[in-house]
Amino acid sequence: MTDTIIYNGTIVTVDPAFRVLRSGAVAIDRGRIQRIWQPREGEPLPEAREIVDARGGIVMPGLINLHTHLPMSLFRGLADDMPLEQWLNEHIFPAEATHIDEETVRLGARLSCAEMLLGGITTCCDGYFHATAIAEAVEQMGMRAVLGQGVIDYPAPGVPDPSKGVAVARDFARQWQGRSDLIRSSIFCHSPYTCSETTLTHAKRAADELDVLFQIHLAETRNELEQMSSAQGCSPAAYLHRLGILDANTLLVHAVWVDVSDIEQIAGSGARIAHCPESNMKLGSGVAPLPDFLSAGIAVGIGTDGSASNNDLDLWGEMDTLAKLHKVQRLDPTIMDATSVVRMATMGGAKALGMDGLIGSLEVGKRADVIIVDIDQPQLTPMYHPASHLVYAVRAGDVRHVMVDGAWVVRDRRLLNIDLDDLLHRVRVFAREVIRRR
Amino acid sequence: MTDTIIYNGTIVTVDPAFRVLRSGAVAIDRGRIQRIWQPREGEPLPEAREIVDARGGIVMPGLINLHTHLPMSLFRGLADDMPLEQWLNEHIFPAEATHIDEETVRLGARLSCAEMLLGGITTCCDGYFHATAIAEAVEQMGMRAVLGQGVIDYPAPGVPDPSKGVAVARDFARQWQGRSDLIRSSIFCHSPYTCSETTLTHAKRAADELDVLFQIHLAETRNELEQMSSAQGCSPAAYLHRLGILDANTLLVHAVWVDVSDIEQIAGSGARIAHCPESNMKLGSGVAPLPDFLSAGIAVGIGTDGSASNNDLDLWGEMDTLAKLHKVQRLDPTIMDATSVVRMATMGGAKALGMDGLIGSLEVGKRADVIIVDIDQPQLTPMYHPASHLVYAVRAGDVRHVMVDGAWVVRDRRLLNIDLDDLLHRVRVFAREVIRRR
Repeated sequence: MTDTIIYNGTIVTVDPAFRVLRSGAVAIDRGRIQRIWQPREGEPLPEAREIVDARGGIVMPGLINLHTHLPMSLFRGLADDMPLEQWLNEHIFPAEATHIDEETVRLGARLSCAEMLLGGITTCCDGYFHATAIAEAVEQMGMRAVLGQGVIDYPAPGVPDPSKGVAVARDFARQWQGRSDLIRSSIFCHSPYTCSETTLTHAKRAADELDVLFQIHLAETRNELEQMSSAQGCSPAAYLHRLGILDANTLLVHAVWVDVSDIEQIAGSGARIAHCPESNMKLGSGVAPLPDFLSAGIAVGIGTDGSASNNDLDLWGEMDTLAKLHKVQRLDPTIMDATSVVRMATMGGAKALGMDGLIGSLEVGKRADVIIVDIDQPQLTPMYHPASHLVYAVRAGDVRHVMVDGAWVVRDRRLLNIDLDDLLHRVRVFAREVIRRR
Repeated sequence: MTDTIIYNGTIVTVDPAFRVLRSGAVAIDRGRIQRIWQPREGEPLPEAREIVDARGGIVMPGLINLHTHLPMSLFRGLADDMPLEQWLNEHIFPAEATHIDEETVRLGARLSCAEMLLGGITTCCDGYFHATAIAEAVEQMGMRAVLGQGVIDYPAPGVPDPSKGVAVARDFARQWQGRSDLIRSSIFCHSPYTCSETTLTHAKRAADELDVLFQIHLAETRNELEQMSSAQGCSPAAYLHRLGILDANTLLVHAVWVDVSDIEQIAGSGARIAHCPESNMKLGSGVAPLPDFLSAGIAVGIGTDGSASNNDLDLWGEMDTLAKLHKVQRLDPTIMDATSVVRMATMGGAKALGMDGLIGSLEVGKRADVIIVDIDQPQLTPMYHPASHLVYAVRAGDVRHVMVDGAWVVRDRRLLNIDLDDLLHRVRVFAREVIRRR
């Protein structure tokens, strides 16, 4: 007997044909999608351990948040409306130095997973410190993730001696390799301007040897471009290319200040891009040339970035803003259509993580990361085109049920794997301490 | 005895000092704000007919949506991702011609009010046809509004003969003058490129004689600027100035393609601006020079525009996008801070409507348009700065209670003045007909 059947929903498969089945059904067995079909009128459903009525809502693959720093939700809104360098040096780095340890990392990671799962994000790709605590928290929450231990040439939370950074990252990546169905490990170098050539190449070699994803912030601000041009005589992307770091196992985050030849080099190398439009907007960094990434055939997904710089982990808002931003940037409303944006937030992220055989769409054989969006609400009525709603009208709070790897983690907008009241209470206690010690 | 006391909330007054009272209280009597204070610990509350526990949430003035076309929610998502002219001529105008009448206008207006009230918008400024039906619907929903009957030199819903447009608009404005505590009437000319000089000046004179607001779309697209420059030898703003239409009783909507001298002329005239960033982005129209409007001292509020072109009536998303858009447009994260954006969505709108003595802030003597935002949620925890949350993290679904003119219209996220299930059912029936007849 099948484990779960979801019926009476508009199935947005995000398969290659972007097939949409009105009043469709999905069968899930042992964590896998077993069947997707449109029952004929009056046709009885097959037997299943659990039958879920989607009540006319949208059934679709879970969203993939391609760039996060999970524990930073603890500092959400601590400092806004200032330049990146001032924000980092005067607010975020000091707050991290004082308040971040293994326990608070665990707390912040839980908080971020709670927000993401309730908002229909079933997979995230993270880079931070104390990655073991993050992995344990994410696994406990029942979420899927690619997690990288951070590498940076400065003292960092849990890594006071930067010369140990690559070794710590390698150890984490090795320990979590194949250990959990939900967690994949990764190595995350902060950036070309905060890591030396040696650090960058050693970290990249470690990632390649373990066959785990290598993540790095790249070309986020004009400052970085200018600094790199004067120090290295080339753009940040060209610098990574010279170091042999651009390849299909590398995820470039931001890629705002890249020119035509950078884009060619990235496309040719097979490297992937995490596009974080809201973070780039809020910090006044710039607009990444996303339409050019897509024409060049680069695998691109969408990231929220840490919630200290956004200030939420809401991929619905991100999709909406992304579509509108590129339209206005090029004064061309046709340049970014709703279907492409839905693809980017699902299959795009899966491709960028090298996990498109596993997740990113509702197709038979894939793991069952499935969300159900409640459209029985004024802002989603009427519905002429589901993709339009998903980009321009659905909000995170409209997600009703969330399944990861065949297991429900959110039912009727409630988290199943954590006592949310207790979690929020602990976060408020943490924040009082931040305020007291400023 | 006082009618209502709201306590145990963070009161964001949006008064001139942007005073915030932690654990504050607000007393409301006969629709007016009677008192705002911070009770000492253990101090008992005064007696009141109704005591409302804000449960740690944010208590603030209702939001003001400065530009809407209420019935167009019926066409939400019908057509996206195409140029303005194609969108209007091939989709929206034909759909209006076939499906819009007094009854469907009423239906769409109710749908839009439902969405806005649930999302914490207590006042809107609208321009459409069959304005009488809209006024009746808005009043029934218990919402505050400034409503303009549309004037355009083409056959329009309910006004097949354009030569009657000004007279119909004047009649509506006169009939609804002083008739309701919640509704103010207005006259809405569609634009300088769809109305002749005679239509514009007659409509403006009618508005001035009745002392009601004159609204007009202005300088939305580059096309309009070019067309006007070649037809009139000047910019759209300069053209209105020449016709004597720019003054303190005129609300200019969009004002995207305005230059330094246009801005000077607008500021000097006392005309107001409705800034609609998401609509301008989605249609690829451009970015209005909002920071320059503010430096010039122009009264500016925020509008969503009709939900066929946005695609929602969500002023929280609009605030978030607005702040981020102008930061990235100028590559300056300091140019639009959270406090200024909250002011724009409340007092800015009130000033633009000439209603700042009445609404737009929580101050003693003003009408009680009050909303309570539930912050007991992962995406709003912790809270260091309320204004930051209001712009960068709060979503429409986080609004818990809404009061207009001293009367509750939303309690615990439920509308009190309409059967929402029945409304949504009627809208779906309407949409099936739209799909059937395409």
